[in-house]
Amino acid sequence: MIKIAIVGYGNLGKATESLLINNKDVKIVGVFTRRDPNNVNTLGTTVYDYQSLFDLKGKIDVCILCGGSANDLPIQTPELARYFNVVDSFDTHSHIMHHKAIIQEETENTTAIISAGWDPGLFSIQRLLLQAIFKDESATFWGEGVSQGHSDVLRRLPGVIDAIQVTVPKEEVLTQARQGNFENKDRHKRVCYVVTERTDYEQLTHEIKNIPDYFKGYETEVNYVSQEALNLQFPTMPHGGHVIASDGMSLMEFQLKAKSNPHFTAQVLIAYAIAAFRMNQEHQYGCFTVYDIPLRYLLNDCDSLI
Amino acid sequence: MIKIAIVGYGNLGKATESLLINNKDVKIVGVFTRRDPNNVNTLGTTVYDYQSLFDLKGKIDVCILCGGSANDLPIQTPELARYFNVVDSFDTHSHIMHHKAIIQEETENTTAIISAGWDPGLFSIQRLLLQAIFKDESATFWGEGVSQGHSDVLRRLPGVIDAIQVTVPKEEVLTQARQGNFENKDRHKRVCYVVTERTDYEQLTHEIKNIPDYFKGYETEVNYVSQEALNLQFPTMPHGGHVIASDGMSLMEFQLKAKSNPHFTAQVLIAYAIAAFRMNQEHQYGCFTVYDIPLRYLLNDCDSLI
Repeated sequence: MIKIAIVGYGNLGKATESLLINNKDVKIVGVFTRRDPNNVNTLGTTVYDYQSLFDLKGKIDVCILCGGSANDLPIQTPELARYFNVVDSFDTHSHIMHHKAIIQEETENTTAIISAGWDPGLFSIQRLLLQAIFKDESATFWGEGVSQGHSDVLRRLPGVIDAIQVTVPKEEVLTQARQGNFENKDRHKRVCYVVTERTDYEQLTHEIKNIPDYFKGYETEVNYVSQEALNLQFPTMPHGGHVIASDGMSLMEFQLKAKSNPHFTAQVLIAYAIAAFRMNQEHQYGCFTVYDIPLRYLLNDCDSLI
Repeated sequence: MIKIAIVGYGNLGKATESLLINNKDVKIVGVFTRRDPNNVNTLGTTVYDYQSLFDLKGKIDVCILCGGSANDLPIQTPELARYFNVVDSFDTHSHIMHHKAIIQEETENTTAIISAGWDPGLFSIQRLLLQAIFKDESATFWGEGVSQGHSDVLRRLPGVIDAIQVTVPKEEVLTQARQGNFENKDRHKRVCYVVTERTDYEQLTHEIKNIPDYFKGYETEVNYVSQEALNLQFPTMPHGGHVIASDGMSLMEFQLKAKSNPHFTAQVLIAYAIAAFRMNQEHQYGCFTVYDIPLRYLLNDCDSLI
């Protein structure tokens, strides 16, 4: 039984717990949180204060870090990698190599695997494979699915009560990519569902469409809905996407459709947590991305699948 | 410039040459064949006798072995791995581990990568990833595409002049797999296009449908066509397939559509040839399958893709 600590208990921590309590190969040591443990309700796992993790050196095989990429992981992953094998799904693409270099310093006897979610993670693997085979560009399309970051930006607008932003790949650009034409980089449509107390819809739509980095310059559609309608339409946080490469002779396409983004991310994280444990047993110390790891560490007895 | 030898000059050797003559990072040392070199017409590469390879120790970075899995590779891959870095696309799934063990013995200072085509190879990677993430079964569907083995079996029947067997995934079983139901293992239809001088079509169809291992027990359709029609319909050898995993919550699907089976196989082989060269430079000696290799060896500067 691999002894696993769940660090952080937001959507991703919850999904990780729900998967691990049904996994016979794993024992959950506990949920560790920076919040008051008395205020955290799990599916049954005991909750401890984050600091008490450091008293458990040698008693945990892998820490699965479920915190956010903005504030939690830049601190927690290096800090915990000093004592434990760790996995995270750090997803700020442009900072991954920096994050890796910092953690590398801490991993004298431990194994850290970072950015192991669906993108970065599974989709990164697909991009590398496809580009290595074709010596050329691949295209990644996200969606159809909920973008947490874009939804958060909408929710912070004055008078907005709740909101969901759905990223939708443009069908015609998908078709072009499948035919080997990757010129059109304008690949996504942003569809917003907004619950608001405001009534100046035209003005609000104008404000949304002009939010720089997030909506300005993108094809953006804004819909106003009731809270009930929003809850009904998005009981989970679906996401997914496509990685496509085509050289005119051949087409390769990887597609993911996940009903729940945190559930799927947790599945990838757990697979890599087990890989981290196995690598550590073979004295493979250091900080690794999905590009650095022989795939056999992900699955026992994989040779029957070859 | 990586110095590459092409060993064997059938469909795969030809496709490898056609790709490498346009690759600026590579120099082709020659085509090496067991046939009389005077009877082999390349796209421009000089042809040498197979035995002369052994005089070129130290002058070749990687040998790309393009022979067949039945008779050529079991002898050539171990024999050449003693002196050279090698890659092959050995595709008898049940013998891969045996092939690996034999080659392993020869690779004191060399790097051998075996079974690096589309299946085994790229599809093996997809199967491992999908099963590691879902802790459950995945399903591989081959086709729609030409099966060389099944076509050969048809061609050997008395009175058959030429034939192509197209493997077609059953649409309804594909749909079941996408919904997480993998129970139905009867996944393929076998469609035969036969050119024959015989006129007892009913008897011939009966014979074909009862060929054990290949057609008996499978849904098999037999069509009689002229040689002209066959040539027109199959100017290349298309192939491809799907690797699908679904757990009810999420669906992952990898799809390949290749207009030319040897062309695509050659693309995968070349990517792994470059990986073998890089691994050898880093003193990674031994015999490796696609499961043993960190993906970063496939592509320089891959970190920008993560």
